[in-house]
Amino acid sequence: MTAYKAPLDDLRFTLFDVLEAEKTLTSLSGGEAHSRDLFDAVLEEAGRFSEQLLAPTNWPADTEGCHFDKAAHTVTTPKGFKEAFKQFADGGWTGLTNPEAYGGQALPAVLGTATTEIFQSGNLAWSLYPLLSEGSTHAMEMHGEEWQRQLYMKPIVEGRWTGTMCLTEPQAGSDLGMIKTRAEPAGKSGEHDLYKISGTKIFISAGEHDLTENIVHLVLARLPDAPAGSRGISMFIVPKVKVNADGSLGERNTVTAGSIEHKMGIHACSTCVMNFDNAEGFLIGKPHKGLAAMFTMMNAARLSVGVQGLALAERALQNSLNYARERLQSRALSGAKFPDKVADNLLVQPDVRRMLLTQRAFVEGSRALLLYTALQTDIEARATDEAARKKAGELVAFLIPIAKGVVTELAQECTKEALQVYGGHGFIAENGMEQFVRDARIITLYEGTTGIQAADLLGRKILQLQGVGLKHFLEEISTFCHAQKGNEALRSLIGPLATFTKQWGELTMKLAQNIQANPEELGAAANDYLYYSGYVAIAYLLAKGVAAAEAGTQSEAFKQAKRDTASFYFARLLPRCLMHQAAIEAGIATVPEIA
Amino acid sequence: MTAYKAPLDDLRFTLFDVLEAEKTLTSLSGGEAHSRDLFDAVLEEAGRFSEQLLAPTNWPADTEGCHFDKAAHTVTTPKGFKEAFKQFADGGWTGLTNPEAYGGQALPAVLGTATTEIFQSGNLAWSLYPLLSEGSTHAMEMHGEEWQRQLYMKPIVEGRWTGTMCLTEPQAGSDLGMIKTRAEPAGKSGEHDLYKISGTKIFISAGEHDLTENIVHLVLARLPDAPAGSRGISMFIVPKVKVNADGSLGERNTVTAGSIEHKMGIHACSTCVMNFDNAEGFLIGKPHKGLAAMFTMMNAARLSVGVQGLALAERALQNSLNYARERLQSRALSGAKFPDKVADNLLVQPDVRRMLLTQRAFVEGSRALLLYTALQTDIEARATDEAARKKAGELVAFLIPIAKGVVTELAQECTKEALQVYGGHGFIAENGMEQFVRDARIITLYEGTTGIQAADLLGRKILQLQGVGLKHFLEEISTFCHAQKGNEALRSLIGPLATFTKQWGELTMKLAQNIQANPEELGAAANDYLYYSGYVAIAYLLAKGVAAAEAGTQSEAFKQAKRDTASFYFARLLPRCLMHQAAIEAGIATVPEIA
Repeated sequence: MTAYKAPLDDLRFTLFDVLEAEKTLTSLSGGEAHSRDLFDAVLEEAGRFSEQLLAPTNWPADTEGCHFDKAAHTVTTPKGFKEAFKQFADGGWTGLTNPEAYGGQALPAVLGTATTEIFQSGNLAWSLYPLLSEGSTHAMEMHGEEWQRQLYMKPIVEGRWTGTMCLTEPQAGSDLGMIKTRAEPAGKSGEHDLYKISGTKIFISAGEHDLTENIVHLVLARLPDAPAGSRGISMFIVPKVKVNADGSLGERNTVTAGSIEHKMGIHACSTCVMNFDNAEGFLIGKPHKGLAAMFTMMNAARLSVGVQGLALAERALQNSLNYARERLQSRALSGAKFPDKVADNLLVQPDVRRMLLTQRAFVEGSRALLLYTALQTDIEARATDEAARKKAGELVAFLIPIAKGVVTELAQECTKEALQVYGGHGFIAENGMEQFVRDARIITLYEGTTGIQAADLLGRKILQLQGVGLKHFLEEISTFCHAQKGNEALRSLIGPLATFTKQWGELTMKLAQNIQANPEELGAAANDYLYYSGYVAIAYLLAKGVAAAEAGTQSEAFKQAKRDTASFYFARLLPRCLMHQAAIEAGIATVPEIA
Repeated sequence: MTAYKAPLDDLRFTLFDVLEAEKTLTSLSGGEAHSRDLFDAVLEEAGRFSEQLLAPTNWPADTEGCHFDKAAHTVTTPKGFKEAFKQFADGGWTGLTNPEAYGGQALPAVLGTATTEIFQSGNLAWSLYPLLSEGSTHAMEMHGEEWQRQLYMKPIVEGRWTGTMCLTEPQAGSDLGMIKTRAEPAGKSGEHDLYKISGTKIFISAGEHDLTENIVHLVLARLPDAPAGSRGISMFIVPKVKVNADGSLGERNTVTAGSIEHKMGIHACSTCVMNFDNAEGFLIGKPHKGLAAMFTMMNAARLSVGVQGLALAERALQNSLNYARERLQSRALSGAKFPDKVADNLLVQPDVRRMLLTQRAFVEGSRALLLYTALQTDIEARATDEAARKKAGELVAFLIPIAKGVVTELAQECTKEALQVYGGHGFIAENGMEQFVRDARIITLYEGTTGIQAADLLGRKILQLQGVGLKHFLEEISTFCHAQKGNEALRSLIGPLATFTKQWGELTMKLAQNIQANPEELGAAANDYLYYSGYVAIAYLLAKGVAAAEAGTQSEAFKQAKRDTASFYFARLLPRCLMHQAAIEAGIATVPEIA
C-alpha cells in the first residue's frame, strides 16, 4: 500500500507564483470572484477528499477489479466506489467547471486541472468514471441543442448520471475513418428526430457500472448517406436508459456491455465492449461532422490524460522518496553518514538521488506545463480581448500534443524509477509501486497514442498551422531569457535555455523544408521532435520556477529544492535533446522499409 | 496469446559468423568435438522444445499462477509445468554445461547461453526453475567437497532435483552484510559436520514447487563465531528432504515455504518466503567465506538475467513486427501503399518502423554482447594458454555488469515499444504483450539492481582492477576499426565508433581522477557510465555484425537488414552517449542532498 498527500504547496506555487494565475483569471469574463482564497479552499478540500476517500481504495480496488455479470450485462465496481462517487457528486465536484445554467460551478479549467491531478493521484481508475463524463458534457455544451443539454447534460453535471465517448471499433482505432457502426433514421420521438444505432464499440471506459442510474453514451456512427472515410461520421446521444420528455427515466435502451476487458492495469475501471442493437439515439451537431465535433473536445481529454501521467508520477515519487528515507542498507561511499544506525538510508547514495531528482524534475516540470496549458484554455474561452483569445487558442493547440505526448511518456520513466528505488520490494504487489507502472502503461495509448500526438504536433500544429503556436511560445521564452539575464540564481540556466530554444526554431525550419520535399520525413522525425519540444518546454518552465521562487515568500528549503531540481534537469536531462536532434537530422534514410 | 519462433538464423550468425565460436571452442581443452554441426543440432532441438512445450504455456501459466497450500506448505505449479520439466530433464538439458563426471554433457557455456535464451523466450517463469539449479550446481562444483557433489549436485544435474540460492532477508537485500540467519554446529551426521540453520529468507525463486521430489537450498548464514558484516557469512547446503548416505531420501527437513509472493509478473514462478527452523545443513566451502563463494557464481547468474532481457525482447519484437504487418490502419504519408486494401498496414509508418528498429538493434546487439561474454567464460575456463585464460577472465569481469545492467534496462524499453506498436490492444491481457512488460520489470532488480551493476562496473572493474578489462576491449575495438577502414559497407560506422570509443577511454580516465578526489563522484556517475559503456559495446558488436554479414553466405535480404539495423543504431541510438557524457561530466554537484 502506498501513501498519498496532495502536493498543495507545489500546486499553489505553480498556479500563483510561476503562472500568476490569479491576476489572469480575475481579469477574464466571469472571473471577478476567482480569487486565490477561493482556489486555496477548493484545492484543500480536493486534497482532503482524495487523501481520505480515494487514496486508500487505490490498491484494494485494483486487486478486487470490476465484476461483470454476463447474463445481466451489469458491472459491479469495487468496494467503496459507489460511496465515493456519491460524496463526489454531493460535493459539487462533477460540475466544477461546467456552466451554472446546467448546475455547474463555472470555475476555471486550470483549477479543474489541478483538482483532477489530486483525484487521479488518489485513484486513477476511479477518477476515470467522472472524467469521461467531462468529455461528454463538453461535447453537449458545444454541439448539442438546448433540449439535449437540459435532458442529457444537466444530470451528468449534477452527478446523477455519467457519460462515455464511444469511438473505437475492432477495426478502427487510430484511424476513425474506418468505423462501421450505423445510424438509421427511425421517425420521431416527440418533436425530435430519432435514430437507431447498431454496431460494436470497444475500449469504452466506464461503459457500464453501478455508480449511477443512467449512462449517456456519445457514439460515432455513419448515417445511410454518409460519405466514406472520416468525413462521413456523425455523433449521437444514446442513453443506457431512455429518458422521458420530463427528464424521468423510461425503458432500458438496447445498448449493453458485452464484456469487460482484462487489462494490464486500471482494473477498477470497467473497460467495456458495448453492443448497440438498434439502440435509440439522437443526432448531436451536424450530420457527417461528428469527427470534427469529437475533436473540439479532444484538447480537454488529452490534457486530462497528460494530468494522469503527472498524478501517477507524483504519488510514485512521494512513496519512493519515503522509502529511500526509511530503508537502511549499506553505507555512504565516503563513509557512514548515520554511524549509530545499523546502516545508512538509501538517500545517501547519489544514484538513488539521481532517480529521485529525475522524478522530481519531471513531476514539477510536467505540472507547470499542464497548468500553463490549462490556463491558456481559460484565456482562450473567456478573455475579453479577442486577440488574447486567439493567441491563447493557438498556444493551446500547439501545447496539447506536447502535454499529452511527453508527460505520459515521462510518467513511464518516473513510475519505473520509483519502483526501482524499492529494489526487489518494488516487484511485490502489496507494496503498491508496481500498480503505478501498470496503470501508467495505458496513458501513452488512449486518447491518441504517442505516435498520434507526435504526428499532430509536427503535421498539424507546425506544418498546417505554420507553427504559429510555437512562435508565440519561442517569443515568450526569449522574453523570459532577456528579462532574467542579470538574475544570479538563473546564471547557469539561461544560457542553455536560450541555446536549445534557438535550436528548436532552427530545427523546425529545416524539418519543414525536408517534409515538403518528402512527406515521409514527417514520420521519421515526429517522435523525436515531440520529445525535443517537451524537454525544452519543461526547461523553460523549471527556469521560470526558479525565478518565481527567488521572488517568492517560500522557505529557503523550498527555494533551494527548486534550484537543485532545475540544476539537475539542465545538467542531466535537458542534454537528451542532443540525441533527439541527431535522430531528427538522420531523417527517413535511417528508417528504411522492413521486409 | 503471442507466437514464438526460435531465432536460429540470428543465433547461428552471431555464434559462427560474428564471434567465430567454432574456431575458438574446438581449440579449447575438451572442445575437440564441439563442432558447428553439433551446436546446430542442439539449437534446433532447443528451438523445437521451446516452441512446442514452453511457448504455448507462457500466457496461460501466468494467468493461472502458482497455488500455495498454507497448511501443507506446498506449491502447485501451473498446468503443463511438471510434464515440461520432466521432458527437459529426460532430454539432458538440465546438465547441458555440467561436467560429465556428475551426469552433465560438458557443452560450452556459450551454447548454454544460446539455449537459455530460447527457453526463456518460451516461458521465462518456467525457465527459472532449472535456471536457479544452475547457480547451485556451479557453487557445489566450485566450492563443494566430492561427497557433497555426489550427493547433492548430481541429482540436480540429472534433473531429478532442483536447487535454490537463499540470500535475501527482509532487512538485507543489496547489503548482504546485514543478514541474520544463524547456523549452529550440531554434531555429526555420519562422518560430516552438521549444522542447524534458523532464519527467514525472502524472494527465493523456486523455493518450493512440485516439479521434483527434492530441492537443495544453498543458504547464506552466520556461524556463532562469525565476524560482523559481509566477512562473517558462510554458505550451507540445506536440502528440503534429508538425504541418506546412499543418496536415497530420508526425513523431511525443517525448512518450509511460509508463503509465496504476489508479484507484478513471472506469476508462474514460485517466489517464496523460506523459513529455516533448526533445519539440518552442511557447510560448503570455508567458514565465513560464503559471500565470496556466492560471488564466484554470480557472473553466470548475472549473465543469465541479461539473457532474460534478450529473451523477452526477442519474443516481444517478433509479435510487434507481426502485428505491424497485419494490422491495417490509415495510409502512408506519401499516399496509399496498398490501395486495394481497406487501409495500409502499420509498417508503412516510419514511426512504427522506428519502434521496430529500436527493438531489433537492441535485440541483435544484446545477443552479440551476451554471447561474446559467454564465449569469454569458456575461454577463461578452458583455454590451454594461461595468458588467454587470464585475459578472458578480465574481459568477463568487465563485461558482466554491462551485459546484465544494460541489457535488462534495454529490455524495459524494448517490451514497452513492442506493446506500444499494438496501440490500445497492447494493454489487453489476452494479447500477451503486457506480460512481457510485467515480466521484464523484475530483471533490473534481482541478481543485483542496475545500481549495483553500475557500482560494480565503475567501482570494482574500472577502479579497483584498474580498468584492465576495458583496456582489452578498447584494444579489440581499435584493431577492428583499423582493419575495417577500407570496408565500404562500414564506411558510416567506423568513424563514430572510433570517436565514441576514444571518448570512452578519456571519460574513464577523467572520472577515475574525480573519484579519487571525492568517492561520492562514483555514485553520481556510475549509472550513466554503465549506459555509455553499453551503447558503445553494442555499437562495436553491430558493426562487427555488418562486417561478418558482408563476408558471409547469408541472403542479400539478411545482409541488408544487418546494414539497416546498424545504420539506424548509429544514427539514432548511439547519440544517447552524448547525454550520458553530459551527465557524467556534471558530477556530484548536480546530485545534491535531498531534505
